[in-house]
Amino acid sequence: MKKIPVGILGATGVVGQQYVTLLSNHPWFEVRFLAASASSAEKSYSEAVGDRWHSTLAIPEKIGAMRVRRLDEIEKAINECAFVFSSVNNETAKLFEERFAEHGLPVLSNASYHRASTDVPVLIPEVNPGHIDIISLQRKNRNWSKGFILAKPNCALQSYMIPLTPLHNRFGVKKLAITTLQAMSGAGYPGVPSMDIVDNVIPYIPDEEEKSEQESLKMWGHLTELGIASEKNIALSVHCNRVPVLDGHLACVSMELEQKPHPDEVIHLWQTFQGVAQELHLPSAPAQSIHYLFQKDRPQPRLDRLAGSGMSVTVGRLRPCSLFHYRFVALSHNTIRGAAGGMILNAELLFKMGYFA
Amino acid sequence: MKKIPVGILGATGVVGQQYVTLLSNHPWFEVRFLAASASSAEKSYSEAVGDRWHSTLAIPEKIGAMRVRRLDEIEKAINECAFVFSSVNNETAKLFEERFAEHGLPVLSNASYHRASTDVPVLIPEVNPGHIDIISLQRKNRNWSKGFILAKPNCALQSYMIPLTPLHNRFGVKKLAITTLQAMSGAGYPGVPSMDIVDNVIPYIPDEEEKSEQESLKMWGHLTELGIASEKNIALSVHCNRVPVLDGHLACVSMELEQKPHPDEVIHLWQTFQGVAQELHLPSAPAQSIHYLFQKDRPQPRLDRLAGSGMSVTVGRLRPCSLFHYRFVALSHNTIRGAAGGMILNAELLFKMGYFA
Amino acid sequence: MKKIPVGILGATGVVGQQYVTLLSNHPWFEVRFLAASASSAEKSYSEAVGDRWHSTLAIPEKIGAMRVRRLDEIEKAINECAFVFSSVNNETAKLFEERFAEHGLPVLSNASYHRASTDVPVLIPEVNPGHIDIISLQRKNRNWSKGFILAKPNCALQSYMIPLTPLHNRFGVKKLAITTLQAMSGAGYPGVPSMDIVDNVIPYIPDEEEKSEQESLKMWGHLTELGIASEKNIALSVHCNRVPVLDGHLACVSMELEQKPHPDEVIHLWQTFQGVAQELHLPSAPAQSIHYLFQKDRPQPRLDRLAGSGMSVTVGRLRPCSLFHYRFVALSHNTIRGAAGGMILNAELLFKMGYFA
Amino acid sequence: MKKIPVGILGATGVVGQQYVTLLSNHPWFEVRFLAASASSAEKSYSEAVGDRWHSTLAIPEKIGAMRVRRLDEIEKAINECAFVFSSVNNETAKLFEERFAEHGLPVLSNASYHRASTDVPVLIPEVNPGHIDIISLQRKNRNWSKGFILAKPNCALQSYMIPLTPLHNRFGVKKLAITTLQAMSGAGYPGVPSMDIVDNVIPYIPDEEEKSEQESLKMWGHLTELGIASEKNIALSVHCNRVPVLDGHLACVSMELEQKPHPDEVIHLWQTFQGVAQELHLPSAPAQSIHYLFQKDRPQPRLDRLAGSGMSVTVGRLRPCSLFHYRFVALSHNTIRGAAGGMILNAELLFKMGYFA
Repeated sequence: MKKIPVGILGATGVVGQQYVTLLSNHPWFEVRFLAASASSAEKSYSEAVGDRWHSTLAIPEKIGAMRVRRLDEIEKAINECAFVFSSVNNETAKLFEERFAEHGLPVLSNASYHRASTDVPVLIPEVNPGHIDIISLQRKNRNWSKGFILAKPNCALQSYMIPLTPLHNRFGVKKLAITTLQAMSGAGYPGVPSMDIVDNVIPYIPDEEEKSEQESLKMWGHLTELGIASEKNIALSVHCNRVPVLDGHLACVSMELEQKPHPDEVIHLWQTFQGVAQELHLPSAPAQSIHYLFQKDRPQPRLDRLAGSGMSVTVGRLRPCSLFHYRFVALSHNTIRGAAGGMILNAELLFKMGYFA
Repeated sequence: MKKIPVGILGATGVVGQQYVTLLSNHPWFEVRFLAASASSAEKSYSEAVGDRWHSTLAIPEKIGAMRVRRLDEIEKAINECAFVFSSVNNETAKLFEERFAEHGLPVLSNASYHRASTDVPVLIPEVNPGHIDIISLQRKNRNWSKGFILAKPNCALQSYMIPLTPLHNRFGVKKLAITTLQAMSGAGYPGVPSMDIVDNVIPYIPDEEEKSEQESLKMWGHLTELGIASEKNIALSVHCNRVPVLDGHLACVSMELEQKPHPDEVIHLWQTFQGVAQELHLPSAPAQSIHYLFQKDRPQPRLDRLAGSGMSVTVGRLRPCSLFHYRFVALSHNTIRGAAGGMILNAELLFKMGYFA
Repeated sequence: MKKIPVGILGATGVVGQQYVTLLSNHPWFEVRFLAASASSAEKSYSEAVGDRWHSTLAIPEKIGAMRVRRLDEIEKAINECAFVFSSVNNETAKLFEERFAEHGLPVLSNASYHRASTDVPVLIPEVNPGHIDIISLQRKNRNWSKGFILAKPNCALQSYMIPLTPLHNRFGVKKLAITTLQAMSGAGYPGVPSMDIVDNVIPYIPDEEEKSEQESLKMWGHLTELGIASEKNIALSVHCNRVPVLDGHLACVSMELEQKPHPDEVIHLWQTFQGVAQELHLPSAPAQSIHYLFQKDRPQPRLDRLAGSGMSVTVGRLRPCSLFHYRFVALSHNTIRGAAGGMILNAELLFKMGYFA
Repeated sequence: MKKIPVGILGATGVVGQQYVTLLSNHPWFEVRFLAASASSAEKSYSEAVGDRWHSTLAIPEKIGAMRVRRLDEIEKAINECAFVFSSVNNETAKLFEERFAEHGLPVLSNASYHRASTDVPVLIPEVNPGHIDIISLQRKNRNWSKGFILAKPNCALQSYMIPLTPLHNRFGVKKLAITTLQAMSGAGYPGVPSMDIVDNVIPYIPDEEEKSEQESLKMWGHLTELGIASEKNIALSVHCNRVPVLDGHLACVSMELEQKPHPDEVIHLWQTFQGVAQELHLPSAPAQSIHYLFQKDRPQPRLDRLAGSGMSVTVGRLRPCSLFHYRFVALSHNTIRGAAGGMILNAELLFKMGYFA
């Protein structure tokens, strides 16, 4: 099979670097276009990244030698790739992403800028694959023929939305009290100053709680002729903390369901969960999206974040709750499943559904 | 004023050492009796502690030279002190504390062993000073004349019970979802192995969630002729995590009240709170038991744990909650307010009320 | 006594904030002038600092209300203060410090910019008080009447130069192999990204080794008619590491002396050391500049950095060395003794010597 | 090829667990005998290890089901294996290791107990493969026919001895000043209490400096008829620190050689180094034992410890030294190369040389 040529906008940043690493041996996709801010343009990728390369793996040789483009070299992108991953910041997303889509290139965006738009899907394959259908409305709304914009949610959501969705589909989620303990890498690079976080917790992450609540309810919403209508009947509260952990966002969840299942039923549902990603054998899909751990003190970020090569969510401590039906703990790798890895999975699903044709 | 002679059971442990430090210049109390396990007995306190002394302050000279006694030298204790602080572990508490009380010595115990007994008060002066009255029932039940046992709650409770109590008294607490992020020092010494906690979170602390829920409801309970009856009408769920922080337990609280106050009213109540400890000018009482911080990212353990010399609780981020009325964050120093310091405050209150006469 | 009015250049930065804190109740000096970059100018100091205030102590009220000036408001400075502390970066130091001195204001500079100039003293009162005399040559060289520039060394030097100097004066230092383990706060704020240093060591600090070697030899140099001549006969090698510690630079020192003393003699020299700062009873001088600790595993940064309110150096582990005469470990608080606190001590000495008249 | 059956003494400890993990798919060796203290005996290995299993990989199923034996079941061991890896502590080593050897089983011991014996090789294949020949003297001395004892050095040595040895062989090492920054895992489990090391450095590790110096000189020693004679003409000083790093020991080295080479020559020697382990294609040998990194701030423990699957040493920052010829930084994974992995490499070499026949 001839590989699909893809581009990366914001290729020199932390998430951009992860796209480079994760796509370096991808069976379907091949990086052919790299764009970044003006200061990087015209340099080779290796030069542009310089000593800010964060992976312990080396820069793939072929990509290291590629020339970095400016973000406005859209024509070039159109000639060279079938779609682009975008990990630019919100300001830049605002300026450029729609222009790429308008010119016919699908944009898979890690920015939060488009997530609130009712015609933009915010996708996790295990949670809301049906939302992909809104793309036709988006194209109609914006008069685009081939291009579109698709988002993924904030990195904190993966930890709890993936285990909650099979329960929601079967028993109906009513109320959720969630507290997250989020890793430092979630703030990008240079991100959190070491003087702020060593021997400390910061019980606040700008805009994170609002995003976590709104995006969750949108992802459980239904499609209408006017766009995605967020779920209105679930009360959901998320408190977000930054903790001195390198990678891995942990969520402490208390949930009330419409019907209260037996705990064994909950665990069985998790252990046997197979979503569209597994059914279609997407290359980045882990064998199991959800790993339930029976040890009483798991999951733990350092021990469990790499489950399923960083693409699985680990869950543990399902137990009765004095307030709602059950409490549990869930963990997901914020810079793999919660960023580039999660979006590559989205791209694989879109490809299978013919969206890059 | 002649100082009241006091003893410390378990004097060589972490909490015992804190008693030694905090009592070294106490205006009312003077350490006159030190007891520890057999391996320490007959040594001077300095020898017995050896290189396991944890404070950056030196061992007070006079106490360092005192001879450490065995825990069964009860007669000696009776001759030398008016009451004892006990920081022995649960097993030892079971074996010895009642014997001291039986022989006429009040025992102020940090162990959890007695906390569930309906005739033993679990005391925080800002929360339930009225529970002291159950001591008369305790003495009657056990046929003790002068001795009694008084406990303080688990170190996690101080962070949320102190700010919640004035709200409970005014507006009535109905529902609480609490997640704690607790410091490593809460596990004693050697406590948490460094290999387990660096770059990690452990989302489980043995028995901590049960204690946090049960003790909270007991502290808000009322006195009956049969003992303290725990509050039954509050739904309270506590999830406890260990995080890589040296000192300071943080609690993320979501609360539903009987009546919903305006947030300014809540903050005003906290800022103006004066409990019995302040009214009686107890020497260890901070000027304010509750500090409300208006910065959006506070309280933080490293920055705020020493507020009021470690005896105040700092509170911040009061904001609406999508699930209940409000969410907020609260922090208390687990080894000062949450251990020896909190119990010394209890002792000061008991002294003022004539319980050591 | 009427207090001496002083100014702070770079008042909003990390070191500038420390000057504000440490000078807030100073018995001799009073802050009357604050300057910072254009973005802060005309704001009150509290506004200008905003949420970047790093101390757990509050901003002193009176200073918080002061108006921040631009760095080119030199006339204002002249009218309002007798000398200035400068904690601006090297680039800014280059542009402004000499202009202040030229206009008659002594500048006590934390920047490294002037440290290599042979007519600028690099001062630690315990090490080279005699170097102050070079100021007359400096004034002559530059045609300045009242102004002058005085520097203090890089923050790593305080840890080893203070204990080495009394040995050097008595026995003569010949060879030194030094490895430092330096705290994160030494890199300023935001400084070291947390993703770089948690669970890690960075065995390199830009320019730090060169500065540590050159400044040490200059401080042990002698005065000539042409300026300070660096010591040429000592072989000194310094390797610098950044470690995950908040405050406190540790140095592992191996030394060869001209004459080998008995170890007791070395320890006695340290324990009895009294420098000009102690002799003149300077207000910021600790009772002892050097504390020798006999425990086999000390000094440790977290336990010992606040010795003498952060102004003393703690030393331990003096022992024979298989290579040179002795090895030892020394520790100094890099942001107190190694930055603002050390320079305030310098200012106190200069004041006593009449340099601000 | 039929696999060689091997045993593990102390199989439930941290290093024992690593043997289990590293040997689970070994091409030559197969675990057939597991022994541990009496409390583990007669349990299955999984039961015996319980929740103290430290790897993120699961216990290999087959080994998990094996029955754990007592350390005195020597007959059983003889019947079931060709040699044993021993990771028992020093006390236990003293009691049992010689008995196994006496009964004809070679013992590859991680304990320090035998390292000082002049007829016991302390082996790193890249450093002193010739020392294996002393085994014949050992057997003669002790009247053993097939059994023998072989040790590996303290985990700190791997970092500097592997890069120093090719330089020593070519140019002659004369003087060495070494300071190590050692990971917490070097202290075993539970090891260093978290309260001791977070935000801290401990500048002392019991006996570590003595071992580092003595074992290094023994490894560079020569064989005589009386045993291994330590090198006498090298002055070597090692200072050891514990730092808050999970895995990876870093060494800052300053060296004086007999002949001073050009730095390019040094780097070339490292880059092209091929030892006996590479020449014999031993399965655990990394392609390169030494990786030289040209970035100015490397090696770093978290980024580089897994080079060569934890079996390579990374080296960087070769630069002139003001005291000796050159300084450099070296890093090795203390629990892989420095413990079980290093000893498995030794076993592979011994096997190739026919020592287990």
